[in-house]
Amino acid sequence: MKGYAMLGIGKTGWIEKEQPECGPLDAICKPLALAPCTSDVHTVWEGAIGDRHNLILGHEGVGQVVDVGALVKDFKPGDKVIIPAITPDWNSVEAQAGYSMHSGGMLGGWKFSNFKDGVFGEFFHVNDADGNMALLPDGMDLAAACMLSDMVPTGFHGAELADIQFGDKVVVIGIGPVGLMGVAGAALRGAAEIYAVGSRPNCVKAAKEYGATHIINYKEGGIVEQVLALTKGKGADRIIIAGGDVDTFDQAIRMLKAGGRIGNINYLGGGDFIKIPRAEWGVGMGHKTISGGLMPGGRLRMEKLASLIHNKKLDTSKLVTHKFNGFDKIEEALMLMKNKPADLIKPVVLI
Amino acid sequence: MKGYAMLGIGKTGWIEKEQPECGPLDAICKPLALAPCTSDVHTVWEGAIGDRHNLILGHEGVGQVVDVGALVKDFKPGDKVIIPAITPDWNSVEAQAGYSMHSGGMLGGWKFSNFKDGVFGEFFHVNDADGNMALLPDGMDLAAACMLSDMVPTGFHGAELADIQFGDKVVVIGIGPVGLMGVAGAALRGAAEIYAVGSRPNCVKAAKEYGATHIINYKEGGIVEQVLALTKGKGADRIIIAGGDVDTFDQAIRMLKAGGRIGNINYLGGGDFIKIPRAEWGVGMGHKTISGGLMPGGRLRMEKLASLIHNKKLDTSKLVTHKFNGFDKIEEALMLMKNKPADLIKPVVLI
Amino acid sequence: MKGYAMLGIGKTGWIEKEQPECGPLDAICKPLALAPCTSDVHTVWEGAIGDRHNLILGHEGVGQVVDVGALVKDFKPGDKVIIPAITPDWNSVEAQAGYSMHSGGMLGGWKFSNFKDGVFGEFFHVNDADGNMALLPDGMDLAAACMLSDMVPTGFHGAELADIQFGDKVVVIGIGPVGLMGVAGAALRGAAEIYAVGSRPNCVKAAKEYGATHIINYKEGGIVEQVLALTKGKGADRIIIAGGDVDTFDQAIRMLKAGGRIGNINYLGGGDFIKIPRAEWGVGMGHKTISGGLMPGGRLRMEKLASLIHNKKLDTSKLVTHKFNGFDKIEEALMLMKNKPADLIKPVVLI
Amino acid sequence: MKGYAMLGIGKTGWIEKEQPECGPLDAICKPLALAPCTSDVHTVWEGAIGDRHNLILGHEGVGQVVDVGALVKDFKPGDKVIIPAITPDWNSVEAQAGYSMHSGGMLGGWKFSNFKDGVFGEFFHVNDADGNMALLPDGMDLAAACMLSDMVPTGFHGAELADIQFGDKVVVIGIGPVGLMGVAGAALRGAAEIYAVGSRPNCVKAAKEYGATHIINYKEGGIVEQVLALTKGKGADRIIIAGGDVDTFDQAIRMLKAGGRIGNINYLGGGDFIKIPRAEWGVGMGHKTISGGLMPGGRLRMEKLASLIHNKKLDTSKLVTHKFNGFDKIEEALMLMKNKPADLIKPVVLI
Repeated sequence: MKGYAMLGIGKTGWIEKEQPECGPLDAICKPLALAPCTSDVHTVWEGAIGDRHNLILGHEGVGQVVDVGALVKDFKPGDKVIIPAITPDWNSVEAQAGYSMHSGGMLGGWKFSNFKDGVFGEFFHVNDADGNMALLPDGMDLAAACMLSDMVPTGFHGAELADIQFGDKVVVIGIGPVGLMGVAGAALRGAAEIYAVGSRPNCVKAAKEYGATHIINYKEGGIVEQVLALTKGKGADRIIIAGGDVDTFDQAIRMLKAGGRIGNINYLGGGDFIKIPRAEWGVGMGHKTISGGLMPGGRLRMEKLASLIHNKKLDTSKLVTHKFNGFDKIEEALMLMKNKPADLIKPVVLI
Repeated sequence: MKGYAMLGIGKTGWIEKEQPECGPLDAICKPLALAPCTSDVHTVWEGAIGDRHNLILGHEGVGQVVDVGALVKDFKPGDKVIIPAITPDWNSVEAQAGYSMHSGGMLGGWKFSNFKDGVFGEFFHVNDADGNMALLPDGMDLAAACMLSDMVPTGFHGAELADIQFGDKVVVIGIGPVGLMGVAGAALRGAAEIYAVGSRPNCVKAAKEYGATHIINYKEGGIVEQVLALTKGKGADRIIIAGGDVDTFDQAIRMLKAGGRIGNINYLGGGDFIKIPRAEWGVGMGHKTISGGLMPGGRLRMEKLASLIHNKKLDTSKLVTHKFNGFDKIEEALMLMKNKPADLIKPVVLI
Repeated sequence: MKGYAMLGIGKTGWIEKEQPECGPLDAICKPLALAPCTSDVHTVWEGAIGDRHNLILGHEGVGQVVDVGALVKDFKPGDKVIIPAITPDWNSVEAQAGYSMHSGGMLGGWKFSNFKDGVFGEFFHVNDADGNMALLPDGMDLAAACMLSDMVPTGFHGAELADIQFGDKVVVIGIGPVGLMGVAGAALRGAAEIYAVGSRPNCVKAAKEYGATHIINYKEGGIVEQVLALTKGKGADRIIIAGGDVDTFDQAIRMLKAGGRIGNINYLGGGDFIKIPRAEWGVGMGHKTISGGLMPGGRLRMEKLASLIHNKKLDTSKLVTHKFNGFDKIEEALMLMKNKPADLIKPVVLI
Repeated sequence: MKGYAMLGIGKTGWIEKEQPECGPLDAICKPLALAPCTSDVHTVWEGAIGDRHNLILGHEGVGQVVDVGALVKDFKPGDKVIIPAITPDWNSVEAQAGYSMHSGGMLGGWKFSNFKDGVFGEFFHVNDADGNMALLPDGMDLAAACMLSDMVPTGFHGAELADIQFGDKVVVIGIGPVGLMGVAGAALRGAAEIYAVGSRPNCVKAAKEYGATHIINYKEGGIVEQVLALTKGKGADRIIIAGGDVDTFDQAIRMLKAGGRIGNINYLGGGDFIKIPRAEWGVGMGHKTISGGLMPGGRLRMEKLASLIHNKKLDTSKLVTHKFNGFDKIEEALMLMKNKPADLIKPVVLI
């Protein structure tokens, strides 16, 4: 079969591979809609997770089941399914401890385009089909559904990690597609004021539509100073970090209230140390909690988030700025993601 | 001064009383807007909290400060303030344990029209002014703000007690003004499907506007059966009880999933025992958690909920179906609440 | 193979059955030590879960692996393992929601001697071996380890459900083996005062050894009155219910502080409704949370609780008052459990 | 009156001051037992919180009430009371948000020997007496009770911040008096393995008595490597940091499991940034939560922790290695704390 792969650091291309085999708990699917992710860009052109050879890329998609293993109970060939980027081993001790995304070791639930071929193939393999796929609700738009693989669960996890409460003042740093879902997630947890940090016009527009009450543009002054001004010097209650780098934490701590929380969902690609300023962290005693975590994946998560779209509580279609038709357009979509033109939020390839 | 009071069980009327005294931590306010509550009806005509003589009624209102005690730091005469129905003693051990509404004993944070004169007087007394009043945000509509005293914090507490998560299926039993705020609260915590149980057309309309995705009308069959049908036999994830009586819990348990939660915010006026069906409660082991609690009051709660209105995340104006002008209209407004005409959700008296 | 079975309600006896088959994820074990449980008594002589025919009893035991399925990675024939009473389907949506004990439906994680043959056979079957068995730590006493299947995780879950905090005053109602582990669990969560409700001398002695600071004997007055007297009328912070019946909740609510929690781990065998007294439950608003749940099972739970014994933080040997030698002594041990002589806490059969 | 004061950075001495005045909510006490704290050493000789002139030192003590304000209800002259190091303003919005120790701003609940004169005076002032003092239980040893002001609540808060669960493997870094209470707190939350990092023989001995199962001595190899070896490469579940400096977090993250938690209770006296290693923190997504906070103070906290001592669940007497008699011995005790002889854990001055 054909697949679009990382050939090595900095190189991608179409390759031929054997079709994946279906174990007794697994499913084999063919893609119906696919989306490239900034992570794919990190993986290939920054070598962020190390070198990979002929590894098929992609971890966001909607597919159709073509084969299931003998022990699979709830899915059958022909079913249209949402595929989460994270597909845990549910019986692992890590999953039993509540951290399925780290099954088998830190980040171990992230398998597609990391440990095994991703979804950018004519066929792809899903481990533990009953535990890791969700039926596509009838009538759901494929491109919108594609956002459920990673953008929605990751952005919303920021709101969960930050533990947003009714009436909170929340900063969302970074308003690419994941940050925009952080804004939407904050709004759907009851935040009163949402300060979205970003400057690209299309993202700013989307941020407002998703619930941002204030836009903070670094071109108009330090973001710490702007947040402190907006909060009368008290700082924000909660911060979702969906962009920036290891130095962003320094800013986040400075604009955060004692008793506040940071939820990081940004993949930190470089730098040795995350910087937490000692004095502003209350010399260790300020109750400014710092958490950061990979999205929870699996079937239930997909079902519940899909239900938000189905019931019109969330509209992911605003994320999809570019649509392509045809499996062979994956390359073009990925390059778009790499080059990030001004009008891009997220591209989807319909197959 | 003049006040509208409970004279005894079943009797109300205007009385003359001494103006309240202002202790060192306290404030004296005059009302700007007032709302009667179904609780006032329970108190007077059902004698639900026992007899009271010449106790001024009312615990929902917006006021203006006329006097403050010597130790009050953050308020001064002339300030317009939101008054919460619940005004705790913040240094009590109960408040220190996280249950300020039970300061000094169960329900002890509820003072207005219970232990002391309520807000239906020309002047009223607020204990611990710095801890229990919030400045009215500039430009906020008085009638809408009046809903912050009790309707919003009580309804939203239902969503808190039920611990609603992204994508949950939530039943809200009862869609009077508190139940409607339960619906709004569930939507603002990320529920995907909200089944509102009620039948009055104006409440049904408001429920849909506040986020209900399905209406369950008892006239169309058993509500348990309807919820089970909607959830394919699995039951709801969460239930907010904002109406009914002690038998409502029986229904709630039957329509709730194992691992689910009930958040009760209904004041249960009669009956000896709340009924929890043994078998459906998993013979004691079904992880169907039952919680119920008085709203959290105090300053911060008011500030945070007011911020939701101010930032247009919540529109309480839809609750206010009847407006009166003039302090002497309190009686008429209360009688409206007692008689509950079909078009009533909530009346407000502007002064 | 031979097994000791429920033949029908009220009848038990030895039967011959086919040896269980080993699926690809499963293990087949032979018992090394077994313990009968009061649940077995309920099941057989009270018909508490309905009729069963020729169902092998037993869900507490330590075993040795004799066969594993092709997909089992972490266990091999010859391994000595602890078997939890609850063996969930870890990829179910219920487990993904954090309630593995209800996988597939309420109480669905309880399979042994409920849906399938229990451990009182020459061989028994364990579903999802990697997810549901734990290696027996070197040198651990078999009888003591046997308490890890059900007594320890159930008793400790009472402390978890009641959410005990440093310095709490905790009532433990019922001090059979599960209640004693409730006492030990409360002590290991930092309770200051533990009021153990019971009267049998050997259990009272064990309760004190496990951390009870006060014994409450119903023969010396109402237990509600005794708890209120000990707490100067304020009530307890937390209550673990490990005995009694549906009326016990009435007492529990009456002796519980506003803001308190009840954790029920008692299998409620009879009665239609659990009784929650309306007024003492704060007319619905007292924040007296009522939770009750089946123990969490599975591998990690067994590993962590075994570690408490291994590190001498918990001594389960005090529970084991009677030891038998030989597989054929199961009947005698079960009858002992049924007849409950005064000196019994828990019997174990070593094989 | 006489008091032992910080005269300026690096200088201490006896001074004469006016006796403090008693506001309407306050109490004036005289000391019965006092203890110097390492914080006093930081404050004076390291200038850790900036310069102070003629500020009476000390924040750990047991006292006797000599005067109370007109609004104080629960205390009277002659009462013997435990004084917490942290005495919040309970009606502040920060306290209402659950962070009383930050009332009025980050660390604002820490008043003694920071914003106002400490307890090393012939008399000292307690703000909000009803909210911030606790009666000394009858018969409690004064020196043991003195440990309740700071050592116990701080150490135990480490266990709370780290959110220790049954059977956890917990590292406690630093086993001075606070770290020892971290060990005791971890044991009292149900940890199975407690790795105490330290090397001083008397502290090692005490750590074992308080529940440490393993001692990790940096002289015997890297502590990260030792913890990884003990946990078979998996890392610890939880870490309490009660010693070290800003670089200690680097080690802590490296020895912590994905999904783990760090609870810092160490006052970080120097360094610009706390170092969190990016890769080991899961490139931002490892769910290794970092929290750190000042101890909760106030009356209820004191009452509950005192109850642990009273009920023999905790023995603080092991901490007190040196006792002095007489108010004028404060200087000697403080110098002992400064010079830290090998046999010192904690000195107490009885008056």
